[in-house]
Amino acid sequence: MNTIKLKSMLLQYFNEDIGDGDLSSETIFSTSDQGSFIFYAKESGIFCGRQIIEIGFPLLDDHLHVRVLKEDGQWIREGEQLAMIEGPIRSLLAGERVILNLIQRMSGIATSAYVAVQLVKGTNANICDTRKTMPGLRMLDKYAVRSGGAYNHRSGLYDAIMLKDNHIAFAGSITKAVKSARAKIGHTVKIEVEIETKDQLIEAVEAGAEIIMFDNRTPDEIRSWLPFIPDHVTTEASGGITLENLRSYAESGVQWISLGTLTHSVKAFDISALVQLKGVIASGTH
Amino acid sequence: MNTIKLKSMLLQYFNEDIGDGDLSSETIFSTSDQGSFIFYAKESGIFCGRQIIEIGFPLLDDHLHVRVLKEDGQWIREGEQLAMIEGPIRSLLAGERVILNLIQRMSGIATSAYVAVQLVKGTNANICDTRKTMPGLRMLDKYAVRSGGAYNHRSGLYDAIMLKDNHIAFAGSITKAVKSARAKIGHTVKIEVEIETKDQLIEAVEAGAEIIMFDNRTPDEIRSWLPFIPDHVTTEASGGITLENLRSYAESGVQWISLGTLTHSVKAFDISALVQLKGVIASGTH
Amino acid sequence: MNTIKLKSMLLQYFNEDIGDGDLSSETIFSTSDQGSFIFYAKESGIFCGRQIIEIGFPLLDDHLHVRVLKEDGQWIREGEQLAMIEGPIRSLLAGERVILNLIQRMSGIATSAYVAVQLVKGTNANICDTRKTMPGLRMLDKYAVRSGGAYNHRSGLYDAIMLKDNHIAFAGSITKAVKSARAKIGHTVKIEVEIETKDQLIEAVEAGAEIIMFDNRTPDEIRSWLPFIPDHVTTEASGGITLENLRSYAESGVQWISLGTLTHSVKAFDISALVQLKGVIASGTH
Amino acid sequence: MNTIKLKSMLLQYFNEDIGDGDLSSETIFSTSDQGSFIFYAKESGIFCGRQIIEIGFPLLDDHLHVRVLKEDGQWIREGEQLAMIEGPIRSLLAGERVILNLIQRMSGIATSAYVAVQLVKGTNANICDTRKTMPGLRMLDKYAVRSGGAYNHRSGLYDAIMLKDNHIAFAGSITKAVKSARAKIGHTVKIEVEIETKDQLIEAVEAGAEIIMFDNRTPDEIRSWLPFIPDHVTTEASGGITLENLRSYAESGVQWISLGTLTHSVKAFDISALVQLKGVIASGTH
Amino acid sequence: MNTIKLKSMLLQYFNEDIGDGDLSSETIFSTSDQGSFIFYAKESGIFCGRQIIEIGFPLLDDHLHVRVLKEDGQWIREGEQLAMIEGPIRSLLAGERVILNLIQRMSGIATSAYVAVQLVKGTNANICDTRKTMPGLRMLDKYAVRSGGAYNHRSGLYDAIMLKDNHIAFAGSITKAVKSARAKIGHTVKIEVEIETKDQLIEAVEAGAEIIMFDNRTPDEIRSWLPFIPDHVTTEASGGITLENLRSYAESGVQWISLGTLTHSVKAFDISALVQLKGVIASGTH
Amino acid sequence: MNTIKLKSMLLQYFNEDIGDGDLSSETIFSTSDQGSFIFYAKESGIFCGRQIIEIGFPLLDDHLHVRVLKEDGQWIREGEQLAMIEGPIRSLLAGERVILNLIQRMSGIATSAYVAVQLVKGTNANICDTRKTMPGLRMLDKYAVRSGGAYNHRSGLYDAIMLKDNHIAFAGSITKAVKSARAKIGHTVKIEVEIETKDQLIEAVEAGAEIIMFDNRTPDEIRSWLPFIPDHVTTEASGGITLENLRSYAESGVQWISLGTLTHSVKAFDISALVQLKGVIASGTH
Repeated sequence: MNTIKLKSMLLQYFNEDIGDGDLSSETIFSTSDQGSFIFYAKESGIFCGRQIIEIGFPLLDDHLHVRVLKEDGQWIREGEQLAMIEGPIRSLLAGERVILNLIQRMSGIATSAYVAVQLVKGTNANICDTRKTMPGLRMLDKYAVRSGGAYNHRSGLYDAIMLKDNHIAFAGSITKAVKSARAKIGHTVKIEVEIETKDQLIEAVEAGAEIIMFDNRTPDEIRSWLPFIPDHVTTEASGGITLENLRSYAESGVQWISLGTLTHSVKAFDISALVQLKGVIASGTH
Repeated sequence: MNTIKLKSMLLQYFNEDIGDGDLSSETIFSTSDQGSFIFYAKESGIFCGRQIIEIGFPLLDDHLHVRVLKEDGQWIREGEQLAMIEGPIRSLLAGERVILNLIQRMSGIATSAYVAVQLVKGTNANICDTRKTMPGLRMLDKYAVRSGGAYNHRSGLYDAIMLKDNHIAFAGSITKAVKSARAKIGHTVKIEVEIETKDQLIEAVEAGAEIIMFDNRTPDEIRSWLPFIPDHVTTEASGGITLENLRSYAESGVQWISLGTLTHSVKAFDISALVQLKGVIASGTH
Repeated sequence: MNTIKLKSMLLQYFNEDIGDGDLSSETIFSTSDQGSFIFYAKESGIFCGRQIIEIGFPLLDDHLHVRVLKEDGQWIREGEQLAMIEGPIRSLLAGERVILNLIQRMSGIATSAYVAVQLVKGTNANICDTRKTMPGLRMLDKYAVRSGGAYNHRSGLYDAIMLKDNHIAFAGSITKAVKSARAKIGHTVKIEVEIETKDQLIEAVEAGAEIIMFDNRTPDEIRSWLPFIPDHVTTEASGGITLENLRSYAESGVQWISLGTLTHSVKAFDISALVQLKGVIASGTH
Repeated sequence: MNTIKLKSMLLQYFNEDIGDGDLSSETIFSTSDQGSFIFYAKESGIFCGRQIIEIGFPLLDDHLHVRVLKEDGQWIREGEQLAMIEGPIRSLLAGERVILNLIQRMSGIATSAYVAVQLVKGTNANICDTRKTMPGLRMLDKYAVRSGGAYNHRSGLYDAIMLKDNHIAFAGSITKAVKSARAKIGHTVKIEVEIETKDQLIEAVEAGAEIIMFDNRTPDEIRSWLPFIPDHVTTEASGGITLENLRSYAESGVQWISLGTLTHSVKAFDISALVQLKGVIASGTH
Repeated sequence: MNTIKLKSMLLQYFNEDIGDGDLSSETIFSTSDQGSFIFYAKESGIFCGRQIIEIGFPLLDDHLHVRVLKEDGQWIREGEQLAMIEGPIRSLLAGERVILNLIQRMSGIATSAYVAVQLVKGTNANICDTRKTMPGLRMLDKYAVRSGGAYNHRSGLYDAIMLKDNHIAFAGSITKAVKSARAKIGHTVKIEVEIETKDQLIEAVEAGAEIIMFDNRTPDEIRSWLPFIPDHVTTEASGGITLENLRSYAESGVQWISLGTLTHSVKAFDISALVQLKGVIASGTH
Repeated sequence: MNTIKLKSMLLQYFNEDIGDGDLSSETIFSTSDQGSFIFYAKESGIFCGRQIIEIGFPLLDDHLHVRVLKEDGQWIREGEQLAMIEGPIRSLLAGERVILNLIQRMSGIATSAYVAVQLVKGTNANICDTRKTMPGLRMLDKYAVRSGGAYNHRSGLYDAIMLKDNHIAFAGSITKAVKSARAKIGHTVKIEVEIETKDQLIEAVEAGAEIIMFDNRTPDEIRSWLPFIPDHVTTEASGGITLENLRSYAESGVQWISLGTLTHSVKAFDISALVQLKGVIASGTH
């Protein structure tokens, strides 16, 4: 992750929630009131968001001290403590919700990714994400996918070529599209082509596609078409793949499976903040 | 919604996805290639995101023309057409994913809100959201909740006072916290207090709370405690409320039920873009 | 106040004044030349702007050390020292004017607010501000009003509903406007209605207004109309109220008096910077 | 004025006031409700802010149409119409306060500048402003000064050298400071020196100051010291100059008089918006 | 190119040059004075910057009309007209320098790229750029390289892996570095490895490098080492390559040659603006 | 230089290169891997960019420690060490290219300026720059010019008036243009006029120009026209001046020579980063 970008994102998010001030904490507490929070897990899964906590709270108020107890990607059990934050009560309360919203999403994504990775264990397949991330949050969504043990597909429209059904429909043919792209693109960029039929597959390979993506194909179709793809071409399945049918896709022999659901339909991972009236970092943990 | 804020959000989101350029569409199509998309629903539910489409595409390229066929809040059936977009293929393809990511989230939220509203029909209860929105997207998340027929709780820390368990624990007592807040706050701001016991409820009412929030209380507790709350005080239930037990809460007599799940765990509503090789706006629809 | 927003405002203001560099101080002093300033009051009144000094100078140059001697809201007498700033001369001189411009405005507002509050002492009335603040500076203007002992009316168009004559003229009637607003707004938002006649007042109360604002009414009108307003409805007077007639309004029995003049016509409070050739923080004050 | 900078300022100001939405106008009016405003003067003075109206409203909503009836710098009489704005009621109401806040400040500054200019008519003196402008608003404050017929002193620390008492105290002597500055500065930048004694004046002239500023000197001192200043050196008076004593300064023979009060203590010029239920631009004025 | 990013770059650049206003054109011309410019080439080469002109001028002032006569990548001869711009004189003059600075750099880069491409004609080699672009201007620098007929290497640190001597020194070995990167990277990202010896080359190929970069190797070394590289691995030469020795590198059989000089040491292409007192777009060219 | 502006520029530049992350260093090194760089000169010339290194690296990662060994403006010889940077390898590698791109440009400019200054030694002439800087980089470009011992012409359109051939053509005459500008401009702004004939020169002087710029005139023309210019008017030559003919211009007696080539056609100064596996700051240099 780019931490200078992360900092500017966090500043934007705090401003969104705090506006011109936190009416509740500023009217009840003075700037010198001190307190602590413990973040703990209310369910079991994969933790993700260490930097959000470590960078976020001190960015809001450099008198906040933070101690994160878990690593990104680590399995945590319900009830476990995740982090301690200590300092001015005003800032603890002003920052709590934004930080929780982020790490609950990230841990939710990481946990889903982890589950998917477990489901394909022992096969040839790797799990990856898509561009179906939440606008503004892509860097975090994709980081969370990696924390869960899965991989990232391209970051955006700018770092790889993917010719989808719409491109091909507009362009007229796979061959035309691939040739046109290849003629203008440098040697560091890969070209991926989405195919729906065996003819398309063969056309794509001949045109020079470096990655073939089986779009909404059954595991059986994939298995029977794989022999027509040379070794140096990478294969990917996408579309209509759920946790239920994931294993059957993985067993088809395809190398990569991309899952939009990892990031477009996230279930927040339940994390809560528990007030500690005494200091937690200096006293309780060393 | 504030459309000038919406425009700056959309610009940020396009930049996130496009970076220095869309390698796929810029290498295959010329600036003069024209085409069309139809957005259609792949499931049934509440549509939300009209302005995203109407403002977003022309912001990316003022040669894109848009015609949205549905209103925000309207029930749409699987297979129905939602919008037509026509213009330079490069820009159609560059903008598609960002717009879909947004309207899929917003329609997902609106549909959930709508379902919740249906479940409490005929009771005294109204449904509202929380601050558990996705950082950066709060304006859109809260708009989607309204599109589904539910209401918005406060927008952020800046527009209402909410004294939660953490505030009260730090402050020492409900009375101290409410008095302190009231002494510093103008007459346009309401004070809400979270309570967990009947004693707290009575203390909060006496301290001058204008909204009492039952935090993780059962419908029965709420029903039996409501008589202790004067008419001019508003009541709200929150915490541990799901679609399964929502009706029983609504029947307790409480006036407002806030649901974090509306925005923290969103299931994307499935919408797709279908290429039209001929123009759709000028020819197909008038 | 939101300090991360304050920091970004201060950065913007320093950039406005410094541009690509301070030609005067950069051509005369080296980066290692050290010096001090004392800020002192050239008139008597209420001080406001502690955070501007404490956050502003170190933001410009983290080698600047600051010691503010007064609290926001404290009465200061002509000639008193307010703050000491010590460090690189280049940065002292580059930051001086921006900081002074801000604290002179804020102390001017706080002093006016304080005067107004004194004038209504012993009555039922509280003083508050309006949205007639200087664009870009609202957070600071409203903070200064609070420092003077007065209160804030709503922060903007987003945190309370105020139906003014223009809304009512366009909407057709108070009843229509209030009902329409109430049907769409959650339970944390209050509705205020501006009235000019007793009939409007009665209509507004019946429609459910939570705050009635007497717009350009005389103290006598207000006094005679107040009995028609139920206890749970808040009352406010606004329009044409000056320091001269303020007391008579306060004695009318109205609860709130809003004064645009607090922020739209500010007299800068006179504060100067006095060079100290020797260090002031380490030597002079401990 | 730089209109692209003005646009970004206006966007910032609208966002400050509107936040995530105008609760009042969005809940009462639909997007298709149309109306008009007339801005009219509630006192007499100099108008300033034409571009604020012409650029501001359409920037908020390009369906708003604007017709400004006065020129910047024009004398307007109480009761005169200044501008007509027509279009969606929602946007009229959302933009009204921000625009008024700006043009009331700008017209207030322009009127003060005009008054000062009248007071020195027939003398050798010109009126100019200082850097005591409101942070963030300098471009507008300085434009308003010009609209009133006065002149601008330097824009910031970056476009001219001004050696004030503090610079000289730190530097040790006027000669050292001027020589040091001159050695590093190109030929397009002028050097101004603040003096308090005749000896300083003579030292400043000999050191090569191009502008001599009489700092808190009496008109008599200025008159008696002017003969010691060569023709090619410009003279300026500043400090403790009010509308009351301005004429006596002007008659001293000094060429420039800078007045901080023009911008640091602005009295808002009273302008109101009057609702017109029928269109005003198309029908009423042609 | 991403035109919404281009627009925000142009706004930043205009603000840099114009600040609070163009003192020259605003004091001499009124807003209604109209005029025209013709941009013409003062030397021969490749034109680049069409969008800068077409988007830039109207962004500054939408009353400016533009007609660009050449395409990006087109060879232009000394004296040829490139573009006509017509509209308010104030805006013509305010925008001229910024636009010229950009298109002179871009045409300079495009011309250099074109020259390099001509020098390798008939060989197997393609020319590409590096990350040695001017900070803030990378999108434009890389576009200009493409306009000259050359290719882009990776856009930044985020879209391809390049293991340089420094990475390898820190990592301990090529094998370790490549394996570590491959284990964490998805299938759309290529890995390039810089090598200086034949042993490194062989290690890199075995570790799975997809691109081998000959770092500061002679054409003879490259020619003799190429046989050790399998067909599916791409080859690149970099370091110490000038227009003088470029051909000998191209004849070595290497596939790609990257030239930092294309963007780190740019000679501005000479373009001037010639005033036309009469309109040029409407009258002169149709 | 304005360091708060510099910081925001550096953040923008790092984001441009790093995007969502440095794929190479983040996949190979852990956050705890430590290393060092030495920057050294690969040619001889003037160093410029100390603050870029000192502020840039710690801005990217506050665990990076920096020790710059040379001063801006200092002559450095090929092979000399310039700076040591020590800390997390990930951040060293992520920041290297951006910092090098900047200091190579700045040292290139400073070296060219230095060469030009040497060429005019012993004459009356000073060297200065123009507005032909790279958009976005003007503050740095102009700082580099000063580091090389030359001077800055105006910073932008906002800090001095320059009437060029285009202004005069549009305005009708030099006299009209100068009078119009002078009537609206304060006393801190100088007016420069470009002339091409002796008649224009005399007209400009009579109209009150404070700087006369000989536009594309020969040294002989300048020498013969100088006697017609009064002492208090400054003279400048510009246009078609190269290192070859610079001396002859300097000997003409003109006071200032402005050179666009200093900034529009920069040759990067060659600087490299050399990996040090052991710490350099703590151990090697004290």
